[in-house]
Amino acid sequence: MDDQKVSLASLFLVYLVLSEGRCNVGDGSTDVPGYKTRYVEVQVDHFSFANSDTFQLRYLVNDTYYKDGDPIFFYTGNEGDIEDFVKNTGLLIEMAPRFGALVIFAEHRYYGQSLPYGKESFKDPAHLGYLTSTQALADFAVLITHLKETVPGAANSPVFAFGGSYGGMLAAWIRMKYPHLVAGSLASAASIFQYPGITDCEAYSHVATRTFQRSGAGCPERIRSSWDVIQDLGKTDAGRHNLTSMFRLCEPLAADDMPTLVNWLVNLWMIYALTDYPYPADFLTPLPAWPVKEACHLITSHEDVLSGVAAATKLYFNFTGQAVCLDISQPYYGGLAWQYQACTEQIEPICSDGVNDMFPAIPWDLVAFSQACYQRWKVRPRPYWAVTEYWGRNISAASNIIFSNGDLDPWSAGCVLKSLSDSLIAIVMEDAAHHLDLRPSNPADPPSVLKARAQEADIIEKWIQEYHLTT
Amino acid sequence: MDDQKVSLASLFLVYLVLSEGRCNVGDGSTDVPGYKTRYVEVQVDHFSFANSDTFQLRYLVNDTYYKDGDPIFFYTGNEGDIEDFVKNTGLLIEMAPRFGALVIFAEHRYYGQSLPYGKESFKDPAHLGYLTSTQALADFAVLITHLKETVPGAANSPVFAFGGSYGGMLAAWIRMKYPHLVAGSLASAASIFQYPGITDCEAYSHVATRTFQRSGAGCPERIRSSWDVIQDLGKTDAGRHNLTSMFRLCEPLAADDMPTLVNWLVNLWMIYALTDYPYPADFLTPLPAWPVKEACHLITSHEDVLSGVAAATKLYFNFTGQAVCLDISQPYYGGLAWQYQACTEQIEPICSDGVNDMFPAIPWDLVAFSQACYQRWKVRPRPYWAVTEYWGRNISAASNIIFSNGDLDPWSAGCVLKSLSDSLIAIVMEDAAHHLDLRPSNPADPPSVLKARAQEADIIEKWIQEYHLTT
Repeated sequence: MDDQKVSLASLFLVYLVLSEGRCNVGDGSTDVPGYKTRYVEVQVDHFSFANSDTFQLRYLVNDTYYKDGDPIFFYTGNEGDIEDFVKNTGLLIEMAPRFGALVIFAEHRYYGQSLPYGKESFKDPAHLGYLTSTQALADFAVLITHLKETVPGAANSPVFAFGGSYGGMLAAWIRMKYPHLVAGSLASAASIFQYPGITDCEAYSHVATRTFQRSGAGCPERIRSSWDVIQDLGKTDAGRHNLTSMFRLCEPLAADDMPTLVNWLVNLWMIYALTDYPYPADFLTPLPAWPVKEACHLITSHEDVLSGVAAATKLYFNFTGQAVCLDISQPYYGGLAWQYQACTEQIEPICSDGVNDMFPAIPWDLVAFSQACYQRWKVRPRPYWAVTEYWGRNISAASNIIFSNGDLDPWSAGCVLKSLSDSLIAIVMEDAAHHLDLRPSNPADPPSVLKARAQEADIIEKWIQEYHLTT
Repeated sequence: MDDQKVSLASLFLVYLVLSEGRCNVGDGSTDVPGYKTRYVEVQVDHFSFANSDTFQLRYLVNDTYYKDGDPIFFYTGNEGDIEDFVKNTGLLIEMAPRFGALVIFAEHRYYGQSLPYGKESFKDPAHLGYLTSTQALADFAVLITHLKETVPGAANSPVFAFGGSYGGMLAAWIRMKYPHLVAGSLASAASIFQYPGITDCEAYSHVATRTFQRSGAGCPERIRSSWDVIQDLGKTDAGRHNLTSMFRLCEPLAADDMPTLVNWLVNLWMIYALTDYPYPADFLTPLPAWPVKEACHLITSHEDVLSGVAAATKLYFNFTGQAVCLDISQPYYGGLAWQYQACTEQIEPICSDGVNDMFPAIPWDLVAFSQACYQRWKVRPRPYWAVTEYWGRNISAASNIIFSNGDLDPWSAGCVLKSLSDSLIAIVMEDAAHHLDLRPSNPADPPSVLKARAQEADIIEKWIQEYHLTT
């Protein structure tokens, strides 16, 4: 198999799809039951005066349990419509009664209804260029200040930031950059170390492979052996016809589609690991309980390796039986805005070596990546800025952050897995996928997640006491 | 006297002149002996991708005492040509031999030679809008990263930020925002609390008055009594002719110049207090030792109050005998760039009540201020952003910052005067004006300053030890 050809052609897509496959994108048109919709005016550009435009940032409020002066639980919205995060996040509202907390879900700029320039927001770099994490953190800082000034009793309320995945990174960062506004943070699946130079780009692939290893004896080996079979078939018309039919592709596979197909499958296994929840869920797509186990069962139970792989593919894309055919030219999920972020400052390299993981060898190629970004967006990535801006691995000056991680989640490779001080507390949850602790409670939740949630609540209670002692 | 008229007409100027009267502006053309000139490429806009321009930021390096792995002493340049800060700052180079330190003076964007758009930099908001403290801190963060990567041994060097006045604020803020790059800071005369809503705008005037009180019995009372005399003279042609002559003004005083004259005098007394050094110095202008004492002697020794005030005015403006006449239409010092900063994010309100201070009653009027800024620069101030961005008075999450203050310095009113923790250490220096501890050692330095410098060096030594224990 011509690994090099695959890697150079497809790395950009691999990365983008992985990065954007973190959340749903909803329609943004209706209120979520129990939540009121509110808006706050913020600057498009907080950090210069070259642009003095403002826009309305949306946030959702649930004051069912709020008592004056009790905490504010503030979800730092990530890449998607904020309503979807309300639906996929149970922890804040489930903990609210214990603490009398006001629950806020703040939307990230350029997602959902929080578009700085409405329909023009994605027109060109002049409109889209203000889509950065630093600007989003400033939006949240302005919103928290606004809440403290306007919500009865909130002037004395400690604020706790919560988030998962990129939202977890934002939750950690807002405590690091604006600690006067945020008394503490729960940063789940926050891959703040997944940046160039501070984490091996192969780490992600290792965790994904491990998750498959734990889900079925011989499963990663079968996947690893599939790549040569697929590449061999790709060399002939008859073989490609066979692949088209096996994967039920919408378009007949051409010879130069092969890198895309391989890439599409690499992403599939990575996303499987990410969403390996212990109950049927509709996080990125509707899936059964323990989907990796289901996939591995299909992969290892078919005598023919390709039939097993194809069956697992269909399980992911067509669990509900709705899909007529599969379109490998489309990214799995996500929208333009996250693709842009992944091409500008959110440069989180992922690669594989084909030896220590179950994937083909796909190096991290910044030059090709940068070129693809420029072609698509007319901007060049700034791959090293995030490490300067967000402290790299040296976050010891921070305090009051819980980093929770699921050990099945490939993103954990770039997360904080060991406590760094009494108040920088890492929790690793066994048998848990991507930020499972944040999701609504479920009878199938593993003991590690129940324990983590209890620990998180106890730590927050301690921080509330400390807050009131010192203010 | 029509205080209200004075205040509304002149507040803007009062503020601007005060704010900009913090440093000299040099010609920027030559190297400073012992220092090499270097440049680093930085983004014009670190926080968006709407503008991908870069420019060369200047910095000066003195490696006379540097030993591999020993500290980097990093001056966070403020509003002026960086060469002037080298000349007016002795502490870094005087402490360097003890620590084997590399000394760096980094220039602030839009000052000296560090102009993002060369001669076009001040053309319009599109070019000038990137002049903000947050962008400047990002420049310094990029430069420190560059130094750590390129200077032999510097990867293991703890970096300490130093600065005075606005530079002291930057030194504090860079430790708050980028603590992975800066092990600790010495922030002298850093008025990080001098923002709307967190410090009484009259506090500055109180300290200025106190400095005059301490410098001559009856001195503030004489100054306070001068305002009615001046206003009365301003009501008639003969009186204004008299004022023109007494103050040796370049242009005959018209009736509507009276607010400008009053304002100009208010600023004069405030700046006198600022620069009350115990030896002849040329900080903002050449002055004798203890200039406030000299001024008060002139003010109180003349039988006629106006003659005394006029004599003190001439002492300030014409100590060297060069000035032919005095032009009250010109700001005392400083350039366009600081005027712009004072109109955008560096909104540090100062007012007086005419009762608890020696000035006329001049309220802080944000509406008039904003209007004046808009007329001048086509931008509106964002008066509350600095409190959100830089933590207001709640900086307890920070660490390793020394806040040093001179008790004669009116800016101390907005500074950190009490230690907030074991590592947020306030030092108040008796008989010291604006950041006297940073200035080159002088036999006339008061004991408080000698003690402060020794304490500062000992604290830095402790932080160096802690740094090496934890990295």
